[in-house]
Amino acid sequence: MVNGKKLKKIIIKIFRNHGLTQNHANIVSEALINAELVGAHTHGLARLKMYCDRINKKVINPKPKIKIKKISQSISQIDANNSIGFVAADVGIKQVIKNAKKTGIGLVGIKNSGHYGLSGYYAEQAVKKNLIVFCFTNAPPAIAPYGSRKKLFGTNPICFGAPTSSKIPFILDTSVSEINRGKIRVAAKTGKKIPMGVALDKFGKPTTDAKKALLGVQLPLGGFRGSGLAWMVDILSGVMTGSSHGGKVKDPFDDFSGPQNVGHMFIAMKPNLFVGNFGKRIKKNIRMVKNLPKIKGVDEILYPGQNKFKRYKKNIFKKILIPNNIKKDLKDLNEK
Amino acid sequence: MVNGKKLKKIIIKIFRNHGLTQNHANIVSEALINAELVGAHTHGLARLKMYCDRINKKVINPKPKIKIKKISQSISQIDANNSIGFVAADVGIKQVIKNAKKTGIGLVGIKNSGHYGLSGYYAEQAVKKNLIVFCFTNAPPAIAPYGSRKKLFGTNPICFGAPTSSKIPFILDTSVSEINRGKIRVAAKTGKKIPMGVALDKFGKPTTDAKKALLGVQLPLGGFRGSGLAWMVDILSGVMTGSSHGGKVKDPFDDFSGPQNVGHMFIAMKPNLFVGNFGKRIKKNIRMVKNLPKIKGVDEILYPGQNKFKRYKKNIFKKILIPNNIKKDLKDLNEK
Repeated sequence: MVNGKKLKKIIIKIFRNHGLTQNHANIVSEALINAELVGAHTHGLARLKMYCDRINKKVINPKPKIKIKKISQSISQIDANNSIGFVAADVGIKQVIKNAKKTGIGLVGIKNSGHYGLSGYYAEQAVKKNLIVFCFTNAPPAIAPYGSRKKLFGTNPICFGAPTSSKIPFILDTSVSEINRGKIRVAAKTGKKIPMGVALDKFGKPTTDAKKALLGVQLPLGGFRGSGLAWMVDILSGVMTGSSHGGKVKDPFDDFSGPQNVGHMFIAMKPNLFVGNFGKRIKKNIRMVKNLPKIKGVDEILYPGQNKFKRYKKNIFKKILIPNNIKKDLKDLNEK
Repeated sequence: MVNGKKLKKIIIKIFRNHGLTQNHANIVSEALINAELVGAHTHGLARLKMYCDRINKKVINPKPKIKIKKISQSISQIDANNSIGFVAADVGIKQVIKNAKKTGIGLVGIKNSGHYGLSGYYAEQAVKKNLIVFCFTNAPPAIAPYGSRKKLFGTNPICFGAPTSSKIPFILDTSVSEINRGKIRVAAKTGKKIPMGVALDKFGKPTTDAKKALLGVQLPLGGFRGSGLAWMVDILSGVMTGSSHGGKVKDPFDDFSGPQNVGHMFIAMKPNLFVGNFGKRIKKNIRMVKNLPKIKGVDEILYPGQNKFKRYKKNIFKKILIPNNIKKDLKDLNEK
């Protein structure tokens, strides 16, 4: 157990020791701790060692020269120069916010980036500036396209955020696989089974063994529907931005043969472009859904992002529980 | 059986008789016949009588004064004045194409519209002009939000199109319900069963009886994932555009108490904004997916839109088969 402030100092020190500037180390540290606080442990400290390993093996550039190219008042291109994904995404979301505030709609394409953690973390930043936002990113192969028995698409999340006129933003951040790859990874570590129908083993057979699933393929949500959505995200964040795509994004844990070259695309819009009272309208919209009769066992109908916010609020005043293997990572990396 | 040209003339005459201009009758006729040719019979002639009924009951305006308001070079708002949805969407997609061609990105929000048929039909028009495009529309209540036992969201399709450097565009047009409402409607008419797990009856119990499902609720794709996606589409096309939302879009078949007030949102982008060779890159992307090892029984891995295109190509030279009940609709409406 460690408190957030102390943990932040440790993580900053680790990334400073790995060559990041104070500012970049701070960005990475905040993103990783946020993942822990919202309960997305698969996107938090569990990845710390991997990021450091990639810096050591020179496949993440700790001192990137990030180039922002203005295409128009609304549109910017970012070449992240193989920075750690958090830093590229931080620059990207700030730029799309700026563009949208100026013109009503902003579009930013980012290439030569890496895994940036939770899409919702960036969406939230735009929503806090009263914008509607899409965040797309591709990822290493995990899902078999519909009709194939080999993985190619990443779990390619679809992330959408909107202001709600309340403290809790609407943040949908959903992968297009039947379940998250991170959950399979955790099940494999803890020896738990995964549900039937979410993955195939390497021979193309359905499996409930998480380790076999990691060697095999994950299945897309709803067959051709999820497969098509994953393909869409690959086109937007990979093909269009100039990043790797079509299964060529490297796995950050297993493949040190070069930078990941992940791509991201952010689109942001002012909510009041068409009618002037978005705040009132969304409030009414949410109320109408919440007032519906509930199924048995459900106390409240939640909108996307509410659960995560509740976890954050609960965890922010508590110490952060760190599993033993990660404690060891932290100690090793901190003493280096 | 009737050939396409003759059928087009009949439909145009029907809508002319219902007060539409020659141009608007032509737009509606082409959209309905296209739905038949791509095999989406639930979005074709089966709806003809409904549209005419709504005109007769004065809840579709046959002579709309459609207003296009320029928000910026990129952004336009359209008030469709309760036109038939096809006409509103035709104006909208042409406007978003124009805006995107001018500035790189176009955004159009449409309010006071109606059911516009297939989203993919409009996406295709943008893709033919070498644009990447999103088409969002909301719809009358059909899906229960996650946690509720009452329907509120429409089947709210997510539609995405991209050029492919071939004659066949990439058109993903997927509802976010486990199966399409149109399919349940057809099953109800033909007395067939629907699969388990796609719908609840009006008491909140799982059912395979299509008629009971129509009186009950459809289930969202993947629980909270599909529910969140449907909610996203309602925010974009309903809350943001100034249209009905939160379950207030009227059912076109059952509710003649007023116009539907459906909303649409179109976003279009030039594919070469960031890197100059999108055509080559997407071709390679598709090739990489198609070259994957296939599961048993699959001859070819298809991208979204390929199947529909194949059906279109097959049907375009054949006469159109018209079921008896629809033949009667055509005859009645034509003789009026």
